[in-house]
Amino acid sequence: MECRVFCLGCGRERHGLEARCSHCGSPFDIEVSGKYSDRLQDNFPYVSRWISLGEVQTPIVSAGGADFKLDYLSPTFSYKDRGARALVSFLRGRMDHGTINEDSSGNAGAAIAAYGSAAGFRVRIFTGSRAREEKIRQIESYGAEVVRVEGSREDVQRAAMGADGVYASHVLMPEFRDGIRTLAYEVFQQYSGSMPDRIFVPVSAGTLLLGLHRGLRHLLESGEIGSMPEIVGVQPEKVSPICHILEGRPYEPPVDGQSVADALVTQKPVLGVQVAEAVRQTGGTCVMVSDEEIMSAHAELSRAGLFCEVSSATVYAAYKKRKWQGRSLLVLTGAGLKTVMGY
Amino acid sequence: MECRVFCLGCGRERHGLEARCSHCGSPFDIEVSGKYSDRLQDNFPYVSRWISLGEVQTPIVSAGGADFKLDYLSPTFSYKDRGARALVSFLRGRMDHGTINEDSSGNAGAAIAAYGSAAGFRVRIFTGSRAREEKIRQIESYGAEVVRVEGSREDVQRAAMGADGVYASHVLMPEFRDGIRTLAYEVFQQYSGSMPDRIFVPVSAGTLLLGLHRGLRHLLESGEIGSMPEIVGVQPEKVSPICHILEGRPYEPPVDGQSVADALVTQKPVLGVQVAEAVRQTGGTCVMVSDEEIMSAHAELSRAGLFCEVSSATVYAAYKKRKWQGRSLLVLTGAGLKTVMGY
Repeated sequence: MECRVFCLGCGRERHGLEARCSHCGSPFDIEVSGKYSDRLQDNFPYVSRWISLGEVQTPIVSAGGADFKLDYLSPTFSYKDRGARALVSFLRGRMDHGTINEDSSGNAGAAIAAYGSAAGFRVRIFTGSRAREEKIRQIESYGAEVVRVEGSREDVQRAAMGADGVYASHVLMPEFRDGIRTLAYEVFQQYSGSMPDRIFVPVSAGTLLLGLHRGLRHLLESGEIGSMPEIVGVQPEKVSPICHILEGRPYEPPVDGQSVADALVTQKPVLGVQVAEAVRQTGGTCVMVSDEEIMSAHAELSRAGLFCEVSSATVYAAYKKRKWQGRSLLVLTGAGLKTVMGY
Repeated sequence: MECRVFCLGCGRERHGLEARCSHCGSPFDIEVSGKYSDRLQDNFPYVSRWISLGEVQTPIVSAGGADFKLDYLSPTFSYKDRGARALVSFLRGRMDHGTINEDSSGNAGAAIAAYGSAAGFRVRIFTGSRAREEKIRQIESYGAEVVRVEGSREDVQRAAMGADGVYASHVLMPEFRDGIRTLAYEVFQQYSGSMPDRIFVPVSAGTLLLGLHRGLRHLLESGEIGSMPEIVGVQPEKVSPICHILEGRPYEPPVDGQSVADALVTQKPVLGVQVAEAVRQTGGTCVMVSDEEIMSAHAELSRAGLFCEVSSATVYAAYKKRKWQGRSLLVLTGAGLKTVMGY
């Protein structure tokens, strides 16, 4: 199996470990060729040795007519471990030591901090000044340094990009998105080839959706599945740029652009067009949910013993809004303990 | 496979669902006869239908010369799910609805709350007035009612025992302890029969240790393993009654009887003699660790990406105190997010 890393803007190949094309400034993508294998290492030719913190095949349980994939039963308690594991394992094959930088005040920051520290890197996580205290504590406990930056999200990103070391961005580095293919492979293995009709995922920057889509497409092109499940992207009404792109409507972030789904914050997704196109290719859709619908869905899931982050409950809120034909799988992305103090 | 529930004090059988013998007041024990099976249901004849919240075979990872079983990758993020699942599934087979009561301000309370609510019971969790706020929030989010009781731990227990409904005590109900046998079976399956030389567990009331011991003994008596791994019980210096029993020394709880390991609080374990005897039978020992040793072990584990509760790090603190021959497995019992606010 081979792979090629190329710029999404101008098609040029990546030279080193840069996060953006030095020619046109666009992010990169990875193209992996070869058929799906049931051995992890065969599907990721750019990783020579996998760092492991105790990943499991996350369980699927049924409740309220739908299936739920508890993707928070993971070393740092969110699905971001899939991306962080691939990216950090890849980097570890390229450099023995050194510093990696990332800007995230949430689950991606914790995942990069844990895998990065375990890999022997010095890890710096750049966050805004309003980051949640309990998420910062988790990041720090892995031994990462947290750097607080005053200003906008763009200012935080600029600081992380400009710092000494490799910018291990979960949004820009293609190995992170690509690592999320493992989610599609697990679902395929767990349903024994008889896939669900559609898969609901929350969308912020869209890395989860893009990684899932790529894994499903790989299964389809390898002849392992006969058709693509629909992908349903879910966004809070207050942060819904992807839904607007799909509906062909202009998007203006509301003045009060902070929803109760506090992990879903991306008002200007760099890969927005790609995310919308991926949804369209599967025949899927995008659903917007209100804060009230999210909180009600979260309470209902908790009472059924499925204790996820508030942001993760968006998928169940979307599921409950309509009558869906066939079998639906909802991905729960973060553990409830992550926001237990925030009620 | 058959089972018998009998009083540990006078040997009489249990009539209903009482937590203590109505004749002599002692707790009950369960005796299950029959050989080990690799099918869950065969090993637990008193459960007719298992409630499931997405349990996994918790992973084992190696770090710092030892193996760690990440037993917090579980629906409510602690090993207590093993006991709660067995107890609640058993109760669900005996009663269709009704109220269950439990006294715990920690992991056992969350586990009983989650499984109990999912089973359709009304759940009341009785806690002292100094319970940690984030643990209370987790318990409440499962839909359980939290009842705060002023006074000593004994007062809290009395309130739970006296309340309407079944007293689903994690300490007294034998199905809870017995449910922890699954830990031994998983370890056996994961090591493919070649067991570790010793297994370290933290000890508070001792249910984890007793359940593990019983599972190992079952494997031994079934001819699946040739000898028992040693069990090493670990206690904070400030809460070390079991270590004292094993050393034959009188125990007087210190005036400052609260260690940083805040899940290990049992100064007067009801089953203390049984716990000490179980350790002795395996040729194991008990190790006391100081608060400083616990915090240092916790920091080291976190930096390796193993983010457990402070109380869980006691086992690594104990491991680091000596040179142990052969292969050691350390059970990490609760997720780090549970105490992330408490640094």
